[in-house]
Amino acid sequence: MVLNSELSGASFVEAAFMAMNLLPLVFILQFCLVASLYHPLDPLSPNEIDRIRLIIQNSSLGNLPNLTFHFVDLEEPLKTRRTIISDRLYSGHGYPPLTFIELFRASKLPLKYPKFIESIMKRGLNSSQVSCVPFTVGWYGQNVTKRALRIACFYRGRSVNVFARPIEGISMLVDVDSMQITMYTDRLKAPLPKAEGTDFRSKKQPQSIAYNVSDSGFAVDGHRVRWANWDFHVAFDARAGITISTASIFDAQVKRFRRVLYKGHVSETFVPYMDPTNDWYFRTFMDIGEFGFGRSADTLQPQVDCPANAFYLDGYVTGADGKAQKMPHVICIFERYSGDVAWRHTEINVPGKVIRSGEPEISLVVRMVATVGNYDYVLDWEFKKSGSIKVGVDLTGILEMKATSYTNNYQITEETLTLTATATHSSKQNKRRQEYQRFKPTPREKVTGRSSGKLPKLKPRARIHLGLEPADLLITNPNKKTRLGNQVGYRLIAGQPVNSLLSDDDYPQIRNAYTKYQVWVTAYNKSERWAGGFYADRNRGEEGLAVWTRRNRAIENKDIVLWYIVGFHHIPYQEDFPVMPTLHGGFEIRPASFFESNPLLRQE
Amino acid sequence: MVLNSELSGASFVEAAFMAMNLLPLVFILQFCLVASLYHPLDPLSPNEIDRIRLIIQNSSLGNLPNLTFHFVDLEEPLKTRRTIISDRLYSGHGYPPLTFIELFRASKLPLKYPKFIESIMKRGLNSSQVSCVPFTVGWYGQNVTKRALRIACFYRGRSVNVFARPIEGISMLVDVDSMQITMYTDRLKAPLPKAEGTDFRSKKQPQSIAYNVSDSGFAVDGHRVRWANWDFHVAFDARAGITISTASIFDAQVKRFRRVLYKGHVSETFVPYMDPTNDWYFRTFMDIGEFGFGRSADTLQPQVDCPANAFYLDGYVTGADGKAQKMPHVICIFERYSGDVAWRHTEINVPGKVIRSGEPEISLVVRMVATVGNYDYVLDWEFKKSGSIKVGVDLTGILEMKATSYTNNYQITEETLTLTATATHSSKQNKRRQEYQRFKPTPREKVTGRSSGKLPKLKPRARIHLGLEPADLLITNPNKKTRLGNQVGYRLIAGQPVNSLLSDDDYPQIRNAYTKYQVWVTAYNKSERWAGGFYADRNRGEEGLAVWTRRNRAIENKDIVLWYIVGFHHIPYQEDFPVMPTLHGGFEIRPASFFESNPLLRQE
Repeated sequence: MVLNSELSGASFVEAAFMAMNLLPLVFILQFCLVASLYHPLDPLSPNEIDRIRLIIQNSSLGNLPNLTFHFVDLEEPLKTRRTIISDRLYSGHGYPPLTFIELFRASKLPLKYPKFIESIMKRGLNSSQVSCVPFTVGWYGQNVTKRALRIACFYRGRSVNVFARPIEGISMLVDVDSMQITMYTDRLKAPLPKAEGTDFRSKKQPQSIAYNVSDSGFAVDGHRVRWANWDFHVAFDARAGITISTASIFDAQVKRFRRVLYKGHVSETFVPYMDPTNDWYFRTFMDIGEFGFGRSADTLQPQVDCPANAFYLDGYVTGADGKAQKMPHVICIFERYSGDVAWRHTEINVPGKVIRSGEPEISLVVRMVATVGNYDYVLDWEFKKSGSIKVGVDLTGILEMKATSYTNNYQITEETLTLTATATHSSKQNKRRQEYQRFKPTPREKVTGRSSGKLPKLKPRARIHLGLEPADLLITNPNKKTRLGNQVGYRLIAGQPVNSLLSDDDYPQIRNAYTKYQVWVTAYNKSERWAGGFYADRNRGEEGLAVWTRRNRAIENKDIVLWYIVGFHHIPYQEDFPVMPTLHGGFEIRPASFFESNPLLRQE
Repeated sequence: MVLNSELSGASFVEAAFMAMNLLPLVFILQFCLVASLYHPLDPLSPNEIDRIRLIIQNSSLGNLPNLTFHFVDLEEPLKTRRTIISDRLYSGHGYPPLTFIELFRASKLPLKYPKFIESIMKRGLNSSQVSCVPFTVGWYGQNVTKRALRIACFYRGRSVNVFARPIEGISMLVDVDSMQITMYTDRLKAPLPKAEGTDFRSKKQPQSIAYNVSDSGFAVDGHRVRWANWDFHVAFDARAGITISTASIFDAQVKRFRRVLYKGHVSETFVPYMDPTNDWYFRTFMDIGEFGFGRSADTLQPQVDCPANAFYLDGYVTGADGKAQKMPHVICIFERYSGDVAWRHTEINVPGKVIRSGEPEISLVVRMVATVGNYDYVLDWEFKKSGSIKVGVDLTGILEMKATSYTNNYQITEETLTLTATATHSSKQNKRRQEYQRFKPTPREKVTGRSSGKLPKLKPRARIHLGLEPADLLITNPNKKTRLGNQVGYRLIAGQPVNSLLSDDDYPQIRNAYTKYQVWVTAYNKSERWAGGFYADRNRGEEGLAVWTRRNRAIENKDIVLWYIVGFHHIPYQEDFPVMPTLHGGFEIRPASFFESNPLLRQE
């Protein structure tokens, strides 16, 4: 999968990020630290998607009842002959992503279910104002599993903020294959939060912000993007969303493009809410493997999601019926200028002169937004003229909320205090004055099978050691050196490290074991793309990054993949209601003696 | 010093950041987490500076020989009566910052010193092309110290990059009070790096970047700045540079301004180069205490240092002669729009509708640049409408370099391999393929008294645990609650934690012991502003943050100060030559149930 590599030791970088712990998520990216020419890795075109459908419908698979296209993707090396090379039926544990039609049908089941109608009437509510939302259910040690969804319902009333008004006490399980409610309980227990104050819509007039960054501009030719000294390929993938590949940078000293990144994309997200109660313990979502970031990609709002100078790309995904579905304006590309400097210096030690120089920092951003139910993820790939690539993850949207009888933290007793990421009207937040809040795994909850959950009582501390071994993490190629003799390399500039709070033996953690480390390195294997396993829904942790690394393959002088986990522990505060101000995370890869000298000074 | 506080438990936040380890630096900032009205804390005006000079010259102090004004500053509570309240002569260890005239005079001494002229001739160099630069010398256990500087000289030739061409082998010590060279040795040992490729000046035509962010704009009235929901005060301090005070935010729900930050500024920088050799071991600079960031502030370059929409402020400092000196355009203020979203959400669960909303993220930035010799620090205070304040530290400029006989890492033997931040033509970088570079203190070097220095040999690792206790750090006020009953608070969002590499008993570390923790909290004491001690030059670690905290004062329900250390371990790479691409660090303080709900939705 490495193209015309100059190097026997091409280095691969994959990065997995985990956002929102307490709502954990995980992403994956692939890079290649080699120098080369541009090579297109286009996604499937609408025609190709339709052709695949026809081929499958005309094959023996066409006779399957309820033939559903959960996920159609390319294996890049087969690009020249896009045919089915295997029709093996998967029989292992775990299921493919839920389709939108399945999710939609499941969401409508309660409204025709007599017991549910009765529950709604019992509460004095109007069922025409009820929205139901399906949730994946995870795996908790069962020997036999079926494809299933839990359904939670919400009362809109005068609110458009569906998630702010949960109808508590009702538990429903849906068998996805038969599309029927197979479990229903109603234990009325909490009042309905009021609609007042829940509206998240902006009342401001949209303002037009002049934003003409540069006259150099960028060129988009199909999926190929050229800007400044960069030349790369952008594809849209149903599972990962933005996929960057064959990113090369022009080296003005040697007057040719040099490969930096073979492939980069998000791999998985893991969002384990830390509430072990019956209606919450299963909320340990793998938004990429269970739903798909590409399929959850949102049409971007000009002047809000992307600035005025943005260029938009459409994406195509395969519908459950195998037909190509157009997703308009799901990627935007724009030049960014934040008012910062790329470099600068003033020299006063030359007699009689003050020599001042510098350049503004202008970069190119490739962006998408994935809205998975209540939550919005903004994913950025930012290319800098210095050779840096920054990956940004902005978290925003609506929090999942739980109606409770208490209004603040201090009403929460030791027994009920759990690490939930819920932000209710009654504001279930966890905090302390001048405290270092530590979260520790606690003994397994018998009720639900979750083994993580309680917040220990803590004392204020005057000095806090965030403690970290100082380190530069370098990806270098022993077979390729600078003129001065240093191995060419890139280094990882990590964000704040975040670890999963779950115990190792907690079932969701077993399935997402990759969250226990921020950085992983594997020898490249083209089948290893999804950190939580390809069949992520209800899987048992038998596949994935943590399993692959047990093979203990050599990584020195190999094509390697770097996986980076972006993580957030999200304790909600009142400001996160009714919609959450953006929280930023991410990482950077930066040249480390990849160039002979600062490349910014060599550009015209 | 807390003004009309509504709260008995006003919370103070000071932050110290340490930038560039291996070139360590330290900064300080002060905040106040109380709600209040605006109160001006103007810096000394030119007239006031001159009046102070006259008062002192007419007092008994006026008879002192060589009366030098090293540092003139205000104690804020005395603002209404700006008079001298103490003329005590300091007799403890440590000295005030070097004045520019002292540094200038010292830099000229070698060029009139016969032995130096001889050394230059011996090397076949032209002394008219030599620039000499003074360096502070630190303290290494001596019982008696004098004010002193080490001088290093550089050969310009055809280069304007003074620091790229060190003339190695010459050591000079200057007695500052007598302004004479008191030690001179010449041990010729390394060739002069060539001039080629050292020019750091941009060859690009400056481009005009349209950048009209908002039509709302901001108002600067003297030192008071009003923008969106913020109202704060900006002063320019000779030691700290930008000083933000009495920052308040308008709460649209209660329709009044609420205090957030009482005072914030950088406190110290610590830049310990990790080279224990004779001409380098003493390079453990405290750029704020020894030189002053305000006095090193640079006139900002429009369209490079600040965008086109920036407004500029002048600063005034006291010259060594006591006269007011104007520093033009040392602070810029501008609205920033990076193309990012402040928040967004798409709701698909309301039947028949797709509800999409969001707002662009527009912020206000207050910026300065301090150029301390070879190095440039860009300091930002960024205010967000959400209530967040982000402090940014961008590092750029020229590295201190050392001429060596080797051209790459692999020529460096175990014995010579030291942790230096030098980036020479011969590229003394430290790196390894796919390695996690750990830096550990090693036994004391007998030659120089430094106890830290060597890079251990390491093996590649496939999995890297960056390891950190998950935590939210909150500053809350137990006496003030939201309507829902949560204590009002702000939380610290830290950057990547970085620890000093020096052993605790290494002399520079004793003087900068605050670098061993990233976060400190102290009870507010107005005399405690400078983390490395007020008389920082050659001090012995008898004053400063680490000493103050030994008193073990209560911090619960007190006015507290939070000190945050921004740190960087800087291993140079070839890209850092001849000028370094900006490296970013910083931290954020963000409302944590300070507001009843997301304040962005309440603004017009």
